[in-house]
Amino acid sequence: MKIDVINTAQEVTSKKVKGKTSVVIDILRATSVMTTAIQNNATQIIPVLTPEDAFQIKSKKGNNTILGGERNAELIEGFDYGNSPLSYTKEVIENKCLIITTTNGTLAIKNAVESDELFIASFLNAQATVNQLINSNDIVLICSGNNGVYTLEDNLCAGFIISLLNAKLENVDLTDSAIASLSLYQSTKTNVVKLASKGYHYNVLKSKQFDDDLTECFTPNKYDVVLKWNGESIIKAV
Amino acid sequence: MKIDVINTAQEVTSKKVKGKTSVVIDILRATSVMTTAIQNNATQIIPVLTPEDAFQIKSKKGNNTILGGERNAELIEGFDYGNSPLSYTKEVIENKCLIITTTNGTLAIKNAVESDELFIASFLNAQATVNQLINSNDIVLICSGNNGVYTLEDNLCAGFIISLLNAKLENVDLTDSAIASLSLYQSTKTNVVKLASKGYHYNVLKSKQFDDDLTECFTPNKYDVVLKWNGESIIKAV
Repeated sequence: MKIDVINTAQEVTSKKVKGKTSVVIDILRATSVMTTAIQNNATQIIPVLTPEDAFQIKSKKGNNTILGGERNAELIEGFDYGNSPLSYTKEVIENKCLIITTTNGTLAIKNAVESDELFIASFLNAQATVNQLINSNDIVLICSGNNGVYTLEDNLCAGFIISLLNAKLENVDLTDSAIASLSLYQSTKTNVVKLASKGYHYNVLKSKQFDDDLTECFTPNKYDVVLKWNGESIIKAV
Repeated sequence: MKIDVINTAQEVTSKKVKGKTSVVIDILRATSVMTTAIQNNATQIIPVLTPEDAFQIKSKKGNNTILGGERNAELIEGFDYGNSPLSYTKEVIENKCLIITTTNGTLAIKNAVESDELFIASFLNAQATVNQLINSNDIVLICSGNNGVYTLEDNLCAGFIISLLNAKLENVDLTDSAIASLSLYQSTKTNVVKLASKGYHYNVLKSKQFDDDLTECFTPNKYDVVLKWNGESIIKAV
């Protein structure tokens, strides 16, 4: 098995993902939100690039939908919820369709839809996702990044996933960027937050008093749920 | 001082480098060759994107020029020398102009010419370059990468340069990618080659029996020379 890491959504091309199993990571906070929503029995998640697309799909799908997401970490006008995983409780999301638009994570998913298989992961469901990945051929871990720029938190999660794959498999072949993500994760000696808290996006959220979100988003393996792209939306795979 | 790291030549844009001091790094082997050539008293180095450009400039500049570079780590037909720093001895290059074309390093330089100041660095002249950088405003370390892909060896050198800057300066503000490069370098505990030898490009060169080049390119601070872009070519700054 070969594992590659891509550092930003913008770098994802059809060529890089075709024939591969891709995993999209956007720790702060899109894929942490998605993991929580599916864990709490959302029927499906539809990622869209713009708020306008979200309103249009909601008008077709009717009332059993929730609009979620953010622009610059803030709630979008007319949306039901923002981009905090803590908002997506069972009471809110069970048996509902979540239509979501975020700055980076939804772009990464859109750019990766030509993958053979496409999973969505966060610290919250890393081990569960890895349990699905062990029978894959080649894997591309897609760090969504922040507006085209490398982010520590996504790469730390990529390194965490590689370390979990390494624990289960022999003969894992890592590209240079995958070696770097693994080294970065291993350098934290599992105290991921200590390093992540030096990062730009972490500090933006901290300055906006999203401390509880930060704790949540860096909680490893809280949920035993796997999220998969089915060609139209994200659903529970396991 | 803010320090950013860009991971590939392709990601360099005018916006990212304008008003900044940039440093181009291509350890295997363009900037190692350039450092050696200037150390051995090349009068100037002209980086060009294609062999055709190189021949054209040589025809204008006359006989006192050397054509150097590579395509896929091999000598280019009609060129004097390849991309081994060991080729560029005083006997070969002193008082000559080197016209060079390589796959990644020359593209990184071309994409960064709108920087306020533009330096060329390698492990060979890292400390000397850092001694010049300490009075700069914001710094962008440009890892050339390999055909648009992240490389370990360039990022390890970026991390080495940041560690040297940290030793000299207070209040260094690192972007996420700069934190990652520094962590990667620190994780090697200065045994850079141990980690770099897991990388793709290292192994390509090893398979082509360039072992002596690999030893040379990872030798830190061998030369006390600084290379600077003067708007037309690379010259000795100090």
